[in-house]
Amino acid sequence: MRIRLTIAYDGTNYCGWQVQPNGVSVQKTLQNAIEDLVGHKISLTGASRTDSGVHALGQVAVFDTTKETIPDWRFAQAINQRLPRDIVVQQSEEVPADFHPRYTDVEKTYEYRILNRRVQLPNERFYSYFVPKLLDVDAMRKAAAYIVGTHDFKAFCSQKTDVISTVRTIYSLDLIKEGDIITLRITGDGFLYNMVRIITGALIKVGFGQKRPEDILYSLEHPGGKVAGPTAPAQGLTLVGINYKAEKKERSCEVPPNS
Amino acid sequence: MRIRLTIAYDGTNYCGWQVQPNGVSVQKTLQNAIEDLVGHKISLTGASRTDSGVHALGQVAVFDTTKETIPDWRFAQAINQRLPRDIVVQQSEEVPADFHPRYTDVEKTYEYRILNRRVQLPNERFYSYFVPKLLDVDAMRKAAAYIVGTHDFKAFCSQKTDVISTVRTIYSLDLIKEGDIITLRITGDGFLYNMVRIITGALIKVGFGQKRPEDILYSLEHPGGKVAGPTAPAQGLTLVGINYKAEKKERSCEVPPNS
Repeated sequence: MRIRLTIAYDGTNYCGWQVQPNGVSVQKTLQNAIEDLVGHKISLTGASRTDSGVHALGQVAVFDTTKETIPDWRFAQAINQRLPRDIVVQQSEEVPADFHPRYTDVEKTYEYRILNRRVQLPNERFYSYFVPKLLDVDAMRKAAAYIVGTHDFKAFCSQKTDVISTVRTIYSLDLIKEGDIITLRITGDGFLYNMVRIITGALIKVGFGQKRPEDILYSLEHPGGKVAGPTAPAQGLTLVGINYKAEKKERSCEVPPNS
Repeated sequence: MRIRLTIAYDGTNYCGWQVQPNGVSVQKTLQNAIEDLVGHKISLTGASRTDSGVHALGQVAVFDTTKETIPDWRFAQAINQRLPRDIVVQQSEEVPADFHPRYTDVEKTYEYRILNRRVQLPNERFYSYFVPKLLDVDAMRKAAAYIVGTHDFKAFCSQKTDVISTVRTIYSLDLIKEGDIITLRITGDGFLYNMVRIITGALIKVGFGQKRPEDILYSLEHPGGKVAGPTAPAQGLTLVGINYKAEKKERSCEVPPNS
């Protein structure tokens, strides 16, 4: 049977989701725990290849197992007993044998946290980007409005990208300011390599007054031009959840209160 | 001159504020950084002896120095350059030579964070107490109301305490629920050893229905009785700030937005 996991992790001590020649990956750590549980080799396929230092609340991954004696919902707990404390499976469930976490219509949500105050807060150092210069959030919101919709995001991705199409649809992009934390929350049908971090970097430039909101529009209209902004650092980014649109029940991998 | 520091730290990797025979303390780490800066031995006196794993946003400490060439406000930055990333001085200022951070009328504020959901979130593991059973926050609020005021808190402190009086005044105790985080925010004129953590432990018992709100009243009225509750774990606790009441300006060590 095919089991789908919803996984939260603290990305601080990992080289990212994917198995890498050097460094410990979240994928490999999970794979070892699952193999220890089911007693056979498995292949674990994730929905998003998060980078080193990036966190997740609702990463999704699947594997096939012959261990039919464990009820699907119980895998989560059994795998967690074999994991370090910085990876926690939130949920496990059986899915059809042809379900693929990447080749299925989705809505993905990411959040990027910015700590905008004069002095750094130590407890935030692994979970936000510390920006000591005051950001103009209203200007950032004006720029963010241009990003919503279907665009060619070539100017908002790393040159390393090798995808065929750089067109993506952003359903929403909100900036929420609570105290000195600014959270950029973005939902779309998919994201190019480093896309959320480059959008954030570009919006921060707008927040500093170093770019106008209209410059973001220009970058969208001229996808062949230079990269729209710097890549904001990894530790501010969290993969919040992945919603498989075709599934009937209103499934969100987002963390509900008292889930 | 006497310099007062307002200090934030991530207590995860320290044996607490105070110098201990084994383990690295926040106090000693700070003291080394300050001595490196000023070029002479100093004695650093803190306002609160936070335990191992307890965090601070606004710990207060003072030291005397002969290094008069550094403006008082600049000590913060200069000390930070000599500190690990998990301790950050937020502010430095000269105070009268007779100012003592402990023997001065204060209002202290602590927060205790509870993560109340079925499954742990890895990014919260060092900054909250994970409680997987649903808490009745309304019942906890009823119990909390009894705690506000001047009482003998003998039943709400560790037996290890050696203070003369166990009477303290609590000015406010609020429970704020945001998503699956319940924050207990308490302000008082002082706290006995483990007092906030035992109050939290007792309120959690009320939240489980294992104690009635009136049992908290009973413990306040019978201070010679047994300890009112278990000691909630250290990592949920943060010393938010210390307000020196006699000082004219509305000084709060709490972290203001864009301070």
